[in-house]
Amino acid sequence: MCQLLGMNCATPTDITFSFRGFSQRAGITSDHSDGFGIAFFEDKACRLFVDNQSAVESPIAELVRNYPIKSRNVIAHIRKATQGKITLENSHPFIRELWGRHWIFAHNGDLHHFDPALSGHFTPVGNTDSERAFCYLLDQMVQKFGFVEPSLEQLFELLTEISPKIAEHGTFNFCLSNGQALFSYATTKLHWLVREYPFKPAQLIDIDVEVDFSQVTTPEDRVAVITTEPLTQNETWQAFSPGEMILFQQGQPIRKQLTYIERLEKERLNPELKRITRADQY
Amino acid sequence: MCQLLGMNCATPTDITFSFRGFSQRAGITSDHSDGFGIAFFEDKACRLFVDNQSAVESPIAELVRNYPIKSRNVIAHIRKATQGKITLENSHPFIRELWGRHWIFAHNGDLHHFDPALSGHFTPVGNTDSERAFCYLLDQMVQKFGFVEPSLEQLFELLTEISPKIAEHGTFNFCLSNGQALFSYATTKLHWLVREYPFKPAQLIDIDVEVDFSQVTTPEDRVAVITTEPLTQNETWQAFSPGEMILFQQGQPIRKQLTYIERLEKERLNPELKRITRADQY
Repeated sequence: MCQLLGMNCATPTDITFSFRGFSQRAGITSDHSDGFGIAFFEDKACRLFVDNQSAVESPIAELVRNYPIKSRNVIAHIRKATQGKITLENSHPFIRELWGRHWIFAHNGDLHHFDPALSGHFTPVGNTDSERAFCYLLDQMVQKFGFVEPSLEQLFELLTEISPKIAEHGTFNFCLSNGQALFSYATTKLHWLVREYPFKPAQLIDIDVEVDFSQVTTPEDRVAVITTEPLTQNETWQAFSPGEMILFQQGQPIRKQLTYIERLEKERLNPELKRITRADQY
Repeated sequence: MCQLLGMNCATPTDITFSFRGFSQRAGITSDHSDGFGIAFFEDKACRLFVDNQSAVESPIAELVRNYPIKSRNVIAHIRKATQGKITLENSHPFIRELWGRHWIFAHNGDLHHFDPALSGHFTPVGNTDSERAFCYLLDQMVQKFGFVEPSLEQLFELLTEISPKIAEHGTFNFCLSNGQALFSYATTKLHWLVREYPFKPAQLIDIDVEVDFSQVTTPEDRVAVITTEPLTQNETWQAFSPGEMILFQQGQPIRKQLTYIERLEKERLNPELKRITRADQY
């Protein structure tokens, strides 16, 4: 399996603190040492660093830990190979362009017997189930919207339709971003939190490092962090419900798909909701 | 304007020597300091490093100079902005995926009033004439071959048809690679050489560095280097003829488009050629 790290921010923010703890899991506090990758959006541009060395040993990971690239959307991945060889073309995140924006995708989990027909617009370069799922998602986006860019809301609705179908093939936790926002989805394990004013100190779990965010932020800053396992020991991380999708923008969740139980509970409290179209989303 | 550097090799080779000289031109021996980028293919995978800092100052360029990534196809670019802002999304090389392969493109020159209709398969992320030309080339490739990957020869023929038409809009020197081979085309300025057994010492022009390639190579190695201005002072660089396209594979030119004068000369020596289809290529 693998581990995911995503960051979505209101203002360009560097990820060096979180990446420092996260990358320890590539051989020191865990064994996710079969390659790593990290993608940073800077407006519409995207910088993607991948290496088939571990995030502990890779000189590229060392650069990322020390070079504070400021970004509003970041997706990182450390790999423990289960499907596909340990080669560079199988390292997440994967990149494609659609509607004049780069799209970045990283996946945690295994998909079995997932071999959908693809139109040819997007074709996997490597041989992972993950890149195939990414190409399929983009393919479905083109099937639905053609070459005219839809709104984030329209994309959210489409992704909440498609993702559970892909998840029927196994475990499907992912982060997806086009530089405007970050879509995250979990069938088994993903956690998130929002850091915002008033900021507090945070203490990493995987390495003895603490940062007092109140000293390095302004009231305008707001950062959502999404990760497989919580990164800090003194903050409250929320677990994704199974099958939950959350859309983050400006450092906060702006759209969530309710789980079935949450929806029933909400309807019980407010029967009016049953009459509202798309009551399963807010 | 900008400067280009391409490398195509028979065996995976690192570009640190050539890049060391080339990157001096980003502020020391020349003023191409508005960003840089370099892409390395490792089999089908591609690592793309871009920065809007100069290749002299960028920590990413420093990493590239010191981390010997071995590759069969490399394309690098240092920018002096003429069209488009100095932003990361305007930094060459550009990347897209087609036929399950990454494609990398870098351009030197300006194109004027070049605003062709694009199908939507490939859309520029930034606002340079160069990325527009890249998207147009890929678009034409899809128009011609659909989603079935053609041979390098078929691609060469298509590119020799399209490139002169784009070049009507200005200066169009480029390097293009899909990891299998490197296509290069020049309307004004591009040079190339092949380093092969028996290897000799080479002395950079832009910095006082010499490497004796006979000490660091095997007889199987062969490297073609393509660059805007020659990089070494004691090797023989060949200038591209105006409008010449050369396809490099396995570290050597495998296909060249003859210039008009060369074709006339060839026909004069061998009138039979006139009857051969596509006699303007060998």
